[in-house]
Amino acid sequence: MAFRGRELRSRIDDEGTLTLSLEDVTVDDPGDDEIVVRVEAAPINPSDLGLLLGPADVASLRPDGTSDRPILSFDIAESRRGSVQGRLGQSMPVGNEGAGTVVTAGANARHLEGKRVGMIGGAMFADYRKIAARDVIPLPEGASAADGAAMFVNPLTALGFVETARKEGHKAIVHTAAASNLGQMLQKICLADDIPLVNIVRSSEQADILRDIGAKHVVNSKDADFIDQLTDAIEQTGATIAFDAIGGGTLGGDILQAMERAAVRGMSEYSRYGSNSFKQLYIYGALDTAPIILNRLAFGFQWAAGGWLLFPFLQKAGAETVGRMRKRVADELTTTFASRYTRTIGLAEALDPKILRAYEQKRTGEKYLIDPTRG
Amino acid sequence: MAFRGRELRSRIDDEGTLTLSLEDVTVDDPGDDEIVVRVEAAPINPSDLGLLLGPADVASLRPDGTSDRPILSFDIAESRRGSVQGRLGQSMPVGNEGAGTVVTAGANARHLEGKRVGMIGGAMFADYRKIAARDVIPLPEGASAADGAAMFVNPLTALGFVETARKEGHKAIVHTAAASNLGQMLQKICLADDIPLVNIVRSSEQADILRDIGAKHVVNSKDADFIDQLTDAIEQTGATIAFDAIGGGTLGGDILQAMERAAVRGMSEYSRYGSNSFKQLYIYGALDTAPIILNRLAFGFQWAAGGWLLFPFLQKAGAETVGRMRKRVADELTTTFASRYTRTIGLAEALDPKILRAYEQKRTGEKYLIDPTRG
Repeated sequence: MAFRGRELRSRIDDEGTLTLSLEDVTVDDPGDDEIVVRVEAAPINPSDLGLLLGPADVASLRPDGTSDRPILSFDIAESRRGSVQGRLGQSMPVGNEGAGTVVTAGANARHLEGKRVGMIGGAMFADYRKIAARDVIPLPEGASAADGAAMFVNPLTALGFVETARKEGHKAIVHTAAASNLGQMLQKICLADDIPLVNIVRSSEQADILRDIGAKHVVNSKDADFIDQLTDAIEQTGATIAFDAIGGGTLGGDILQAMERAAVRGMSEYSRYGSNSFKQLYIYGALDTAPIILNRLAFGFQWAAGGWLLFPFLQKAGAETVGRMRKRVADELTTTFASRYTRTIGLAEALDPKILRAYEQKRTGEKYLIDPTRG
Repeated sequence: MAFRGRELRSRIDDEGTLTLSLEDVTVDDPGDDEIVVRVEAAPINPSDLGLLLGPADVASLRPDGTSDRPILSFDIAESRRGSVQGRLGQSMPVGNEGAGTVVTAGANARHLEGKRVGMIGGAMFADYRKIAARDVIPLPEGASAADGAAMFVNPLTALGFVETARKEGHKAIVHTAAASNLGQMLQKICLADDIPLVNIVRSSEQADILRDIGAKHVVNSKDADFIDQLTDAIEQTGATIAFDAIGGGTLGGDILQAMERAAVRGMSEYSRYGSNSFKQLYIYGALDTAPIILNRLAFGFQWAAGGWLLFPFLQKAGAETVGRMRKRVADELTTTFASRYTRTIGLAEALDPKILRAYEQKRTGEKYLIDPTRG
C-alpha cells in the first residue's frame, strides 16, 4: 500500500541558484520497525530556514510554476556560496519536526496504527512521512496535531538549557530573544524548577508577554541603561550562563561584561585578570548572521563562548536523561510546552512569495504552521 | 636582620593618572616557613605589563624624580578607567617571577640559605623579596639567576597547553605569536612528546627561528594564501585546539574557520550545521587589545572560545600534575626551557622613558630582564 504525495524540496545548483519546489514522491511500504504518517502539522522553525533558504538573497525571489505546484528561485551571492558547497546539486527535503496520523505500520509497530504522533527527523514538509517508530511519540488523548507539531525542537532545547546549566554548575540563566515560543517554555520550566532566569527582549510588548506568564527579570536591550539593568538583574540572580539566539554583534559580549561587573561588585581585592567567576555564553541561533564581537578586556579571562546544538547535546546527555525529558514534554504538552501559531498554511502556500517573505523574517512571537491537508 | 631595598610600584589615582616609582621598603624577618631572596633577575613578561601600565596611554609619559629614584606619570583615557576601578589609590608592586640568592631563611627553611632559587608570586621588581619556601624552586648546580628567572610562567604555560590539549582529547595544536620564548618552548616540548604543532607567525624571520629548532609546520599570517596554508597544515596534523596570544581581531576566527574547512574536506554528507569536529580556541594573551571578531557562520556550531590563564589551570590540574610539570622544568631548565633576553637592565632603568617605550611594545622575540643588583 504505497502513498503518493508532495514533498517540499530545496536545491542549489552550480551557478548559485536556489530553487524551492513541491516534488511528487511515492512513499512505499514501511519496514517492520517503521510507520507511515500523514503529516497534519509541521512548524516552520528558524532552524528549518537554514536548509530551506540557505544564504539566498530573498529579495531576488522569482516565482514560477503553477498555484498547486509553485516553484521559487533565488540568487546566492558568490561570496556566500562557500558554506553550501557540500549540498550543491542535491534535492533536499525540509522540515525538522511535525505531527500527524499513522496510516500504516510495520509488523513491530502495529500498536501505533491510527494513532496521532509527534515526530522528528527531517522531511516533514510533505504529505506523508515514513519514519522509524522510535522517532515518534504518541500524543496524549485529545491533543491535536498542532499541539504535537513542535514537541521536540523547542521543548527539548528549553529543557536542554536547564540540564546544561545544572550540569555545569550554574544557578541562574540569561536568555536572549526571550519572548519566543522557546523563551516562554524556558520561563515556565524555570518557574517550576525554581531557577532564576534573566530574560532579554527587544520591546516592551515582548516584556509584557513574559511578565504575563510570571517572569520576574525582564530587561529590554533597547533601553539606554540596558547594561546597568542587566548587571543588576545578574547580581540579584547570580546568573553565570547565557543562551543566546541572536549570535551576531555585541550582545553576547555585553552579557559577559554584565556578568563580570556583577562579580567584581562582590570582590574585596583587585585582580588585573578580573574576577574568578566563570562566565559561559552559549550561542544556539543565528538571528543575526553578522560576526560576534567580543570585547573580552571587559570580562577578564574566566569566560567561554561556544555553540550549543540540540542533537549533539542529546547524544551526550544519554538515554536516561533524554527519556526523562521526553516524558516531561508529553506530560506538559498543552501547558508548559504549548506553542502558539500566528498562522496555519497549506504546503503550497509555503511557497507563496508573500507568505514566504513574512515567515522568513523570524519575528519574535510570530510562528507559522504548515498543514499539508489544507492543500 | 631586616633588609632595606627598593620596590617598583604602580599606582592609579582617582583622576586617572598612573604613576610608576621606586619606593624604599624594609623587608623584615622571615617566618618559620619563609625566606628572603636577593633578586638578581626578573623578566618583564607581557603579563607584567598589564599591572605595570594598565590601560595608560604610553604616549602621555611624563618623567619626574631623579635618576636613581625616577618617577613616571601617564594619563588613562576616561573611557578606559572602568577596568581599573578596583585598584584605584593602591600602590601595587609588580613582577610575577624572578630568581636570586636566599639571604636569610626561617627555621623550617634553613636548607635553602645561600641557595639560588627561582620564584613566583608577584613583587619581584625589587631588591629583596620575602616569600614562602614552597613558592621557590632551587636552581640546578651551575644555573645562573638569568637561567632561573623565567622558570614558572612561560614553561608552565607551555606545558599547560600540552596538558590541556591531551586532557581535552586533541591530538595536535595550533599556536599564534609562535616565535616567542613561550612558543619556542612549546615547539621543543611538542617535538619531544610527538605532538604535531602548527605555528602561526607574522614574518619570515620568525618562521626561521622556529624552523631552526625543528618546527615542521610554520604558517605566516602575512601571506596572501594564509588561510589555505593554515587549512592544509591543520588537515595534515589534525589540530582541533588553538592557543592564541593575540586575542583581538579576526585571527582566532580564522583558525576556527581553517579547522572547520579541514574537517569538512573529510565529510561524505552535507550538514547545514557544519562538521561534527569540535574546535577549541583558547585566548591566553592580549597582544591586540581590540575586540575579537568571530564570524561563526564560517565554522558551524561545534566550537568554543574562552580565556586560558595559568593559575586557574594549575589549581584545577592538581598537585601531582603540577609537581611533574615543575620537575620537568628544573630538569630541562637550560635546554627546553631556556629563555633568551635581548637586554638586561637595572631596576631604575626599567623607569627610563626610552627603555620603557621599547619593552612595552612586546615585540615577538624581544625580551627584557631586570637585574636589580645593577642599580
